[in-house]
Amino acid sequence: MSPEKMQKYQREINACPLLEDVTLQEIEEMGDHARVEVFPEGQVILSEGKMSQGLWLILSGKCDVIKHCGKEPSVLSTLEPGNVFGEMSFFEMAPHSATVQAIEEVKALCLGREEFEELRETCPSISEKIAVNIVKLLSDRLRRMDVWTCELVETEKNPQRHQEWHDFRARLYSNIFD
Amino acid sequence: MSPEKMQKYQREINACPLLEDVTLQEIEEMGDHARVEVFPEGQVILSEGKMSQGLWLILSGKCDVIKHCGKEPSVLSTLEPGNVFGEMSFFEMAPHSATVQAIEEVKALCLGREEFEELRETCPSISEKIAVNIVKLLSDRLRRMDVWTCELVETEKNPQRHQEWHDFRARLYSNIFD
Repeated sequence: MSPEKMQKYQREINACPLLEDVTLQEIEEMGDHARVEVFPEGQVILSEGKMSQGLWLILSGKCDVIKHCGKEPSVLSTLEPGNVFGEMSFFEMAPHSATVQAIEEVKALCLGREEFEELRETCPSISEKIAVNIVKLLSDRLRRMDVWTCELVETEKNPQRHQEWHDFRARLYSNIFD
Repeated sequence: MSPEKMQKYQREINACPLLEDVTLQEIEEMGDHARVEVFPEGQVILSEGKMSQGLWLILSGKCDVIKHCGKEPSVLSTLEPGNVFGEMSFFEMAPHSATVQAIEEVKALCLGREEFEELRETCPSISEKIAVNIVKLLSDRLRRMDVWTCELVETEKNPQRHQEWHDFRARLYSNIFD
């Protein structure tokens, strides 16, 4: 690959929040562990509630993110090239919080959990950068959701709700051992 | 230190969720970067809304976590030896989401952001483990808060609230570029 092309490639990669600060050398190192997967239109890539651990970076095509709130499933958003998914359950074996479905042919770079473990051994600096980038993303999301829910609870007339919210947050932010 | 004492020390350290999987050798490496701080009773260690980046592990004493919801400040919880704080804004320069105040003399191990950066250079495997452990903690919190808020929104009669929640989540889970 020419130096110009490599630089362009690095800029594109770094534009993805989860790959911020990652160097070209590390990208190459990662290339040995990640694989490109192609999903036909309509294929479900992740299923809400199911377990599987991988980090996907969309290279081409689009996916819908579908999530249940109560009984109703709804399309939360549409992911495009450069978007990542799988980060919520990548480090912790937990059910996927949403379904991701290809709405046209999708090509994605996939880093499986096992490949990531190999990468941790051979190149901890890159797995460290990815982990730090995920922390930034999640702490930002958590902060925003806390503010949103706080405002919603404030509009409630029922004082019991306020107490419930207080108790829930107390558990959430402190009992890190449970 | 005797081998028995070292093992006991490692077990205690590993019992802290943020130091899971960290080896004795890495703890020693970290010891060169972290410092022990002592706070007298009543001292505010972190102020809600203020910026500063550090990760604190309580070695002895207790702290209250105080958070505003609307105008009212309330004691969310009391932290004890083994508990950690500062993780929400450690990787991202953001205002602290709560105030932490010593309610008796507190001794804490503090890893500042600059010291962490040094650690990233000299021993990326430990900073990687800490980052991965924080990801686990935050994704778990985010998932719980999502479920809690979803249930709250479900009890709302107002269909506009449902739409607002849908739109908010759509932004939260997908617009990772903003």
